[in-house]
Amino acid sequence: MQWTKVLGLGLGAAALLGLGIILGHFAIPKKANSPAPQDLDLEILETVMEQLDAHRIRENLRELSREPHLASSPRDEDLVQLLLQRWKDPESGLDSAEASTYEVLLSFPSQEQPNVVDIVGPTGGIIHSCHRTEENVTGEQGGPDVVQPYAAYAPSGTPQGLLVYANRGAEEDFKELQTQGIKLEGTIALTRYGGVGRGAKAVNAAKHGIAGVLVYTDPADINDGLSSPDETFPNSWYLPPSGVERGSYYEYFGDPLTPYLPAVPSSFRVDLANVSGFPPIPTQPIGFQDARDLLCNLNGTLAPATWQGALGCHYRLGPGFRADGDFPADSQVNVSVYNRLELRNSSNVLGIIRGAVEPDRYVLYGNHRDSWVHGAVDPSSGTAILLELSRVLGTLLKKGTWRPRRSIVFASWGAEEFGLIGSTEFTEEFFNKLQERTVAYINVDISVFANATLRVQGTPPVQSVVFSATKEIRSPGPGDLSIYDNWIRYFNRSSPVYGLVPSLGSLGAGSDYAPFIHFLGISSMDIAYTYDRSKTSARIYPTYHTAFDTFDYVDKFLDPGFSSHQAVARTAGSVILRLSDSFFLPLKVSDYSETLRSFLQAAQQDLGALLEQHSISLGPLVTAVEKFEAEAAALGQRISTLQKGSPDPLQVRMLNDQLMLLERTFLNPRAFPEERYYSHVLWAPRTGSVVTFPGLSNACSRARDTASGSEAWAEVQRQLSIVVTALEGAAATLRPVADL
Amino acid sequence: MQWTKVLGLGLGAAALLGLGIILGHFAIPKKANSPAPQDLDLEILETVMEQLDAHRIRENLRELSREPHLASSPRDEDLVQLLLQRWKDPESGLDSAEASTYEVLLSFPSQEQPNVVDIVGPTGGIIHSCHRTEENVTGEQGGPDVVQPYAAYAPSGTPQGLLVYANRGAEEDFKELQTQGIKLEGTIALTRYGGVGRGAKAVNAAKHGIAGVLVYTDPADINDGLSSPDETFPNSWYLPPSGVERGSYYEYFGDPLTPYLPAVPSSFRVDLANVSGFPPIPTQPIGFQDARDLLCNLNGTLAPATWQGALGCHYRLGPGFRADGDFPADSQVNVSVYNRLELRNSSNVLGIIRGAVEPDRYVLYGNHRDSWVHGAVDPSSGTAILLELSRVLGTLLKKGTWRPRRSIVFASWGAEEFGLIGSTEFTEEFFNKLQERTVAYINVDISVFANATLRVQGTPPVQSVVFSATKEIRSPGPGDLSIYDNWIRYFNRSSPVYGLVPSLGSLGAGSDYAPFIHFLGISSMDIAYTYDRSKTSARIYPTYHTAFDTFDYVDKFLDPGFSSHQAVARTAGSVILRLSDSFFLPLKVSDYSETLRSFLQAAQQDLGALLEQHSISLGPLVTAVEKFEAEAAALGQRISTLQKGSPDPLQVRMLNDQLMLLERTFLNPRAFPEERYYSHVLWAPRTGSVVTFPGLSNACSRARDTASGSEAWAEVQRQLSIVVTALEGAAATLRPVADL
Repeated sequence: MQWTKVLGLGLGAAALLGLGIILGHFAIPKKANSPAPQDLDLEILETVMEQLDAHRIRENLRELSREPHLASSPRDEDLVQLLLQRWKDPESGLDSAEASTYEVLLSFPSQEQPNVVDIVGPTGGIIHSCHRTEENVTGEQGGPDVVQPYAAYAPSGTPQGLLVYANRGAEEDFKELQTQGIKLEGTIALTRYGGVGRGAKAVNAAKHGIAGVLVYTDPADINDGLSSPDETFPNSWYLPPSGVERGSYYEYFGDPLTPYLPAVPSSFRVDLANVSGFPPIPTQPIGFQDARDLLCNLNGTLAPATWQGALGCHYRLGPGFRADGDFPADSQVNVSVYNRLELRNSSNVLGIIRGAVEPDRYVLYGNHRDSWVHGAVDPSSGTAILLELSRVLGTLLKKGTWRPRRSIVFASWGAEEFGLIGSTEFTEEFFNKLQERTVAYINVDISVFANATLRVQGTPPVQSVVFSATKEIRSPGPGDLSIYDNWIRYFNRSSPVYGLVPSLGSLGAGSDYAPFIHFLGISSMDIAYTYDRSKTSARIYPTYHTAFDTFDYVDKFLDPGFSSHQAVARTAGSVILRLSDSFFLPLKVSDYSETLRSFLQAAQQDLGALLEQHSISLGPLVTAVEKFEAEAAALGQRISTLQKGSPDPLQVRMLNDQLMLLERTFLNPRAFPEERYYSHVLWAPRTGSVVTFPGLSNACSRARDTASGSEAWAEVQRQLSIVVTALEGAAATLRPVADL
Repeated sequence: MQWTKVLGLGLGAAALLGLGIILGHFAIPKKANSPAPQDLDLEILETVMEQLDAHRIRENLRELSREPHLASSPRDEDLVQLLLQRWKDPESGLDSAEASTYEVLLSFPSQEQPNVVDIVGPTGGIIHSCHRTEENVTGEQGGPDVVQPYAAYAPSGTPQGLLVYANRGAEEDFKELQTQGIKLEGTIALTRYGGVGRGAKAVNAAKHGIAGVLVYTDPADINDGLSSPDETFPNSWYLPPSGVERGSYYEYFGDPLTPYLPAVPSSFRVDLANVSGFPPIPTQPIGFQDARDLLCNLNGTLAPATWQGALGCHYRLGPGFRADGDFPADSQVNVSVYNRLELRNSSNVLGIIRGAVEPDRYVLYGNHRDSWVHGAVDPSSGTAILLELSRVLGTLLKKGTWRPRRSIVFASWGAEEFGLIGSTEFTEEFFNKLQERTVAYINVDISVFANATLRVQGTPPVQSVVFSATKEIRSPGPGDLSIYDNWIRYFNRSSPVYGLVPSLGSLGAGSDYAPFIHFLGISSMDIAYTYDRSKTSARIYPTYHTAFDTFDYVDKFLDPGFSSHQAVARTAGSVILRLSDSFFLPLKVSDYSETLRSFLQAAQQDLGALLEQHSISLGPLVTAVEKFEAEAAALGQRISTLQKGSPDPLQVRMLNDQLMLLERTFLNPRAFPEERYYSHVLWAPRTGSVVTFPGLSNACSRARDTASGSEAWAEVQRQLSIVVTALEGAAATLRPVADL
């Protein structure tokens, strides 16, 4: 070939190659530079579901419940170290973990001078004493670490008087006794658990001049009527006759000395004399074995039918014992309480998996660590799952297989049993940080009450993510149902939007979710497995807060095989992953519309006529609910549209912020100044049975018997305006962000 | 050529082209797909600076101040329409604009029965009357729309008694009168403006049994001592003898009937009998011409030297008139006030430029619209700038030249003069939306008090953006100084970090920024041009709140040529653009460190010894300040590092959220329950002269004379914990977001 030809061909080739390069670079759009944004990975989800291991949960539980671990006890501190060790494990730990300690006011019985309940004869001698400890039926009920049954925060004192029976210690119970002409002043009231909160029994009693309170668990309420040793643990899941429910009798939550301030050593502490919410009179819980001795010997009128229980005798009201019983008729009951308040160090343990894309969005998952005794169910059944979840996710993390889009924070709270103290102090210390950034709070405390069905409490925005999760997980037990399909058989409701769906319960203040939802306005949920109500009427699992809540109790009776534990772990795990990994936050704010509509309808139905009588119109509330519904629906539409396109991460972030922050818009720290920490205008405590806006409902109850111009009716109007403002404000945050 | 050769060459060429395309597409990274994120555009900034036109501002002012436009008057409503028209203009308007109306409680003098101040002789006849109106010196002081001078919210009543002179009506002034043995019960107190707030004069007087209050402006305080007609407006900028400062005497802000609720028609309204904060006794302002007649005829002891003024006589204390004066010695003064409270509709006007990238981040700029009379200075000098800013930005927007990264919201507030009512109701109605999304609030009310220098009040995070803006804008007047360089000559301080810098004032409650900073915790600023203090001691521009605050007053005396107006417009415009367009938010949170350090040092110096006596340690506060300093500095470092790279918009958004939300972390709605709307623990009202943490300082003042175990000392400790918790919480939000 001629060299000119070669040159020509070479030049031509270079030109062609060059043209190609130019075309390739500019004319073909490049995909690699805009990769799909990190989203929920179904394979990872599947892996997590598979790896959550029932056996490991069981082993966690065995270790956690090996010894009693009362808040601030040495064993409680050992478990802090256990958690830290697991969360710092190089193979299966989190990105970082640490313990933080608060100095909080706890209440303990005296070890030197145990609390006692005696029957004192006419001459002043003790003729009978109640048991001071539970019977050591499995070898785990003895020993120095089993705290004597007591009513935490009940004051010390040694009241003595004639015994009366006061049913559940509700206000109406004491009124009934009054109606019956029974002189309550100076008496000792025997009450049973249930109906009202623990502390309320003593508060109500004290109003009537009662000097001391006893509280027991009736076999009718906890044991489906059974009470003999051979029918109870260790022969069944029922409470043995000597079992006593311990508990906090404090009316509020959080450290009693540092309301609204974190209980760090330097914080201001309220003078003890100014602390409110402690029971006003000495109070002591006893077992039903002891309660039988007292109650079955009472004198006086027969108690009403609804006051009767399963102790095998006719309950009478007293006062005092009947002449033909086991004790002289004028015997009295002496309640000697020697509880002591102590400032103790209590730790939270926190661990974090850093989000890859949005590290400043936190999916927060927690449970308390402290128990009353061994606490196999409460709280270790939850902690066993917490450890398994963190292990599975930690392992994927450490292997480099996965890192979530958002941060996941795990928490082990201290001193929950005394009043949600660790979690509350945490929210006080990091109020703004948490409020700005937390996507949702997931609580799994007692993970398995029983093994029949899932039970979820939560605010409306979490409903859909729980539904999505549970539809994909097989239910334990026979058959091939999903957890969702099984759940709907036990708890369901007819939704105007979805038809028949499982029903979520609402969040009270029963566990550590309380400060998150009520004080911070963070969408929250509590997940557990629970009873088939057709099979038991027990108000809670029978060994609750007793020394019989042990590993064997769970292993033999509550969840042999731990498949319910596994089901809860999977549900929680799936919810965590969906919240932390989904590009679009799976919080469906439009599900609040149904709640608001039903609250509104209840208000119209049950309060409408009364309000009209006092010239108060629900019109503005109707308008506000309608506005919320419309804006929530429109936002849902915009999300759908966006999901069909390929939105950029900033666009989705803005939208997710609207979803995340909706729950905050229902907070008003000035709405209920007398209700400590309760700022959520939809979920604050509500008296009365109508399920509606609590502020409105409570104000109406108080105003009902007053004249139209009263302060109480002004408060009704104020509460109505507060909720209208909250709903209008919420609707405004759902509008397109650049709308005026 | 052979066909095989041709084929060969053809195939080779195709292969080469193909190879090129492949290389071009995959081997060369494409820039076009990751364009630089939208950031501040200096050319746009320059354009805006150039287009802000002094002449147009002057024409805006002429139109705005043409008629009196008292809140809720027809002319006020006309201006609502004017604003809407401008903001909806297709050539120079915003994306959208709307008016929103509240029903608020205002106070007006009766038109049928004007307020009067008379001297009543011994026989009960009126022997002298004060002027009911200002003298019509320019033809603008007459007419039905010029509201009679009055003390808004002062109750009606016709008290009569001997006159006393009470200086500025401060608590110590009345104590001084008591010390002098003057019986105050039933007297009328003549006070002068200044020293304490308007309402406080009546509150303090009432505590001493005084029956009525007169308030005047002393020429010493406002006119540099000048008082004759030929020395005052229209011959100079000084207040004419008949000029009377109107004003609100309400002690709080916001609609008086709807605290914490938006004053929409349906909202709950407090019963009038329960409203607090109104002056307790009839009160009326008068001009110094009338005050001279009263004061120069007083009997009694000579007033202290600091009580003397420039009325050309020796001020005496009273009570009553001296025998050798113009009135009989036992003449009394009758103050007849016929003010009426009325529910009126008052509108805010809002307009928005939608952000292109982060529409859910709002840069909020506002001023009130209502005046007392023509209000050329107050507030129209600000509104004239508001209109010019919106015109220039709107024009760029409508041309398609520019759209900001974040949204810009313009606001024209109603009824500010009565107590920041429009802005406060707005923050009540959209509390959450604003708190979640507002980057900063910029207030320009009176834009030009005088034409010497810039004056800025604001919280520390806004300092740097104001500095950046003002360094780039030429100062009006001779020379070639920047606004910054001119400013530093008048207001400066020595910063430990920066050396000599202009000093920003702190934000009280003098204009509509108050609800934004104190109630919502949004970083705020107020911008104006003001006095050379070496040239005048006037406490404010002399015609403030009088019928002499007219267009000609501004045009001739305050800012001929409107170059100071233009300077303020440019400053505000540059600040708006920097806040709305900068990729990284120009809020320098580390500038809070200096403030906290100086507050701490003041506390140590002035309260340290006292606290130590009561065993209260400032140690936790020292630690908290140090922690804040360290975290703020570290965040600054991370920003610098990030700015050097090419961070993605989501990363920067997360960081910007930390900057934007820092101010929120200083809010605690439970810190000062008695101080309505004040939740910011650093800027709540502070009594006493020590510039330190207000809660701590105020609590110390109250505790100072009590014993160590008192409630007051407990409150000191509580306040100390509140500020420590806030600072620790703030520091926590500045940490890397995935740190525990």
